[in-house]
Amino acid sequence: MSVPHTGTGDRLLGGILSTDFYQLTMAQLYFRAGLADRPARFEHFFRSYPDYGRHQAGYCVAAGMAPFAKWMTDAHPTDADLEALRGHRSSTGQALFGDDFLGWFADLDFSALTLHAVPEGRVVHPNTPITVVEGPLAAAQLLETPLLNRLNFPTLIATKAARVSESALGRPVLEFGMRRAAEAGADAATRAALVGGATSTSNTAAGYTWGVDPSGTHAHSMIQAYLALGEGERAAFQAYADTYPDDCLLLVDTVDTLGSGVPNAIAVFEGLRRRGHRPVGIRLDSGDLAYLAIQAARQLNQAGFDEATIVLSSQLDELTIWQITHQIQEEASHAGLDAQAVINRLVFGVGSRLATSDGSPSLDGVYKLVALKRDGAWQPAIKRSDTPEKVLNPGTKRLWRVTDQQGMATADVLSTADEALLPGAAMALHHHSRADVSRVIRAEEWAGADELLQRVIADGEVVSDGGMEALNDLGVISERRRADVAALGPGVRRLVNPHTYHVSITESLWDLKQELLAKLG
Amino acid sequence: MSVPHTGTGDRLLGGILSTDFYQLTMAQLYFRAGLADRPARFEHFFRSYPDYGRHQAGYCVAAGMAPFAKWMTDAHPTDADLEALRGHRSSTGQALFGDDFLGWFADLDFSALTLHAVPEGRVVHPNTPITVVEGPLAAAQLLETPLLNRLNFPTLIATKAARVSESALGRPVLEFGMRRAAEAGADAATRAALVGGATSTSNTAAGYTWGVDPSGTHAHSMIQAYLALGEGERAAFQAYADTYPDDCLLLVDTVDTLGSGVPNAIAVFEGLRRRGHRPVGIRLDSGDLAYLAIQAARQLNQAGFDEATIVLSSQLDELTIWQITHQIQEEASHAGLDAQAVINRLVFGVGSRLATSDGSPSLDGVYKLVALKRDGAWQPAIKRSDTPEKVLNPGTKRLWRVTDQQGMATADVLSTADEALLPGAAMALHHHSRADVSRVIRAEEWAGADELLQRVIADGEVVSDGGMEALNDLGVISERRRADVAALGPGVRRLVNPHTYHVSITESLWDLKQELLAKLG
Repeated sequence: MSVPHTGTGDRLLGGILSTDFYQLTMAQLYFRAGLADRPARFEHFFRSYPDYGRHQAGYCVAAGMAPFAKWMTDAHPTDADLEALRGHRSSTGQALFGDDFLGWFADLDFSALTLHAVPEGRVVHPNTPITVVEGPLAAAQLLETPLLNRLNFPTLIATKAARVSESALGRPVLEFGMRRAAEAGADAATRAALVGGATSTSNTAAGYTWGVDPSGTHAHSMIQAYLALGEGERAAFQAYADTYPDDCLLLVDTVDTLGSGVPNAIAVFEGLRRRGHRPVGIRLDSGDLAYLAIQAARQLNQAGFDEATIVLSSQLDELTIWQITHQIQEEASHAGLDAQAVINRLVFGVGSRLATSDGSPSLDGVYKLVALKRDGAWQPAIKRSDTPEKVLNPGTKRLWRVTDQQGMATADVLSTADEALLPGAAMALHHHSRADVSRVIRAEEWAGADELLQRVIADGEVVSDGGMEALNDLGVISERRRADVAALGPGVRRLVNPHTYHVSITESLWDLKQELLAKLG
Repeated sequence: MSVPHTGTGDRLLGGILSTDFYQLTMAQLYFRAGLADRPARFEHFFRSYPDYGRHQAGYCVAAGMAPFAKWMTDAHPTDADLEALRGHRSSTGQALFGDDFLGWFADLDFSALTLHAVPEGRVVHPNTPITVVEGPLAAAQLLETPLLNRLNFPTLIATKAARVSESALGRPVLEFGMRRAAEAGADAATRAALVGGATSTSNTAAGYTWGVDPSGTHAHSMIQAYLALGEGERAAFQAYADTYPDDCLLLVDTVDTLGSGVPNAIAVFEGLRRRGHRPVGIRLDSGDLAYLAIQAARQLNQAGFDEATIVLSSQLDELTIWQITHQIQEEASHAGLDAQAVINRLVFGVGSRLATSDGSPSLDGVYKLVALKRDGAWQPAIKRSDTPEKVLNPGTKRLWRVTDQQGMATADVLSTADEALLPGAAMALHHHSRADVSRVIRAEEWAGADELLQRVIADGEVVSDGGMEALNDLGVISERRRADVAALGPGVRRLVNPHTYHVSITESLWDLKQELLAKLG
């Protein structure tokens, strides 16, 4: 407890000390050992798709790069950071960090690092580098925690949002998770949900920040307030319609959905229609949502509001939405309705289960040293493990997405840095860790190979096309996600027990890996 | 898309617009309807303990109040907030928010609200108000999302940390979750983990901010760097020992834990010992941690390092820790070791599964209108629900913890505002929603009743004893948690399938609830 208590002050939070402490102890060691400036290469990758228990992801969506790039290009130690480190005592009471190191640290930024990444919004797979950092060892090491913290979680949430969008059959998805999200992490969750396919959010500040109008109308409490004042649900609805005649969407389940809520909403909608306004619709937030949606649609249709939207919310996730749309497909005709017409008026409000990636609340993304320069040449680094799956793919590498004649993604392939994948010939591939699994893609089975890693940051600036603004353009990012997901086979996109997408390494990389493992003994 | 894209700028994030959009549409409605200043009372409570699937919580630990109180007493709209709202268009292109409302909103803060809460660190249970907000309807409503966002998640994580501490049998717990936590939510996770019983954290900025020295030594990458340079694990350990002779804790599983890591660590420790330093210990981060801890302890003991700490990490949670300590209890003697001595040198590093509350990543905390003033008197508000469990406990209330002669917690009881629970007499209690479940606590079965809700904020300031500094004192908060957990029966504290703690309402409150439900029809 050597550092004075700084109240709830947050001047240190979110800065360069928002990192694991061991990055700092290692940095001082590298500094003292003369290794701080040694060129190094680190790769960020995840080892497995999220497994939600009852269902599993067959692909992920890369997210978080723009906010991370902004942080990385701005970050530098402040006086408060230096003061905190200076006050840190060793177990015997000496300063843990010396003035020599602190002098070096005071001038640190990340401008000596080059960062390559698979562009935000693109589909990504396990055991392939989605971010690559190259530059001085100490700075690259210090970047580990901020990078993992700012890319793992958004990738996890964008993946969940892509699955929810898939289950929503093209209907709008609203992200509603702020109240139960991980405190300030709610904002990253919102942005990642938009990357993954959510159309809007209830998170007002985040919506405005990222250029999307936030969504929402009213809560049960508004109805309760009118009830407590001796007025009814109808009076509450009427007050809402008077305030928002052109944006009138009413929550109908406070008292009795079909007996009171929907009839009251219809009465208020009729008044709006008489005055020339077009009511938006209703929201259902409890009960059997499929049944209630069908019955509410029937009541709305009978009153001539065939186009009124029906927003569904309440503990939704991709599996629940999938069940609801299937139940509607089976049951709508019993109520004399066209199932597709009911589905075409649905909007899904998805909260906690999206914002926390319920079932799989963390992505197992890691950041590993893969090469170090020695005598001017890259020396591959490898970490042995008792788990063959965890043995690293060593050295500098390139990542390719192989596509067939129809433009569908066939495999992601990792090659050594000096290989290029040129179509027209057969390609021999290996599983990244299992000697017994190999595969040949015949010449006629592939038509192209797209290199996935792009240079994003160099010399302390965003150097990808269009700079920071393009990097953060959610429209462009979403379009990338849409195209990449569309290029996946339906088996890979399946919500439950998806088909395994092929991720392989080339023969040259396999040989290099075996050679290094043999050397390690 | 009416609002211009503002890059990754974050001037709106974390401010008063970090709220669900419907709070703003409701606020404008209340303003227009003359209801904005109507006194209202909202209660924050959760409905169920976290259920992690294979195991379940039998109590929660309240957390997050100090940072929330700081936010609430500082928050006010900025020009950027007002500009964003002014630019929001209705579906027909008009301004959604009128100048009348924006004029009112520009002057808004939360100083007209009074907040009561169960003090941070205390044990709390479902369906009882843990935070109560009273004041003008519009301001109290606008506070909903920031309050839920800043209290639900910390309470969830403090609860998980308390369980991890329980399973760690009093041994230190280090919070290591930043890399896979929910981006900026990592800081709230760290603070909540400290509230719940973690002894330190790897999150450097958060540790310094909240007065705890951050923890950590080095990663596998440091060993890999030395290997890539043609030097060995031993050289890496030696470099670490030279830099940190009095804080030398070495990660021994990069190459081969028992064949290389531990022997190399011992060789380096012997050098330190010769120079008069006391090595700290080793860290195991993969493999069968119980087996490896026993074998590593044996090797360390043989070299005379009986007191060297053994830090365990790698996907730990309360259940895994419980299994590890039990496996050590069964197996240590086969290796000629005293099991308790092995356990007494363990430290647990717990990461993703703590920082995300794996298995149950959100707490179902809600914020409900329970009363509104009408003609100078509180009018209870109630929300009917098809689920009896979800029917609110209406009106203004008091919350009590009933204790027996030994000071053990017997029940939490919710009473009407004008009741006091005085020992010496029998007490008739009801289940909060089930008519068939009631209970009498006999006079000799209880010795006292502690009122749990304390006034924390009034007139825009922290008014609880000691002000903001005391509110945020993690030492005091942790002591509260320790005492409250110690007052729970062992059945309630059990990690798997815990005994259900009694939460009841008084007869008067039950009668009021039935009367209101009858009126609602």
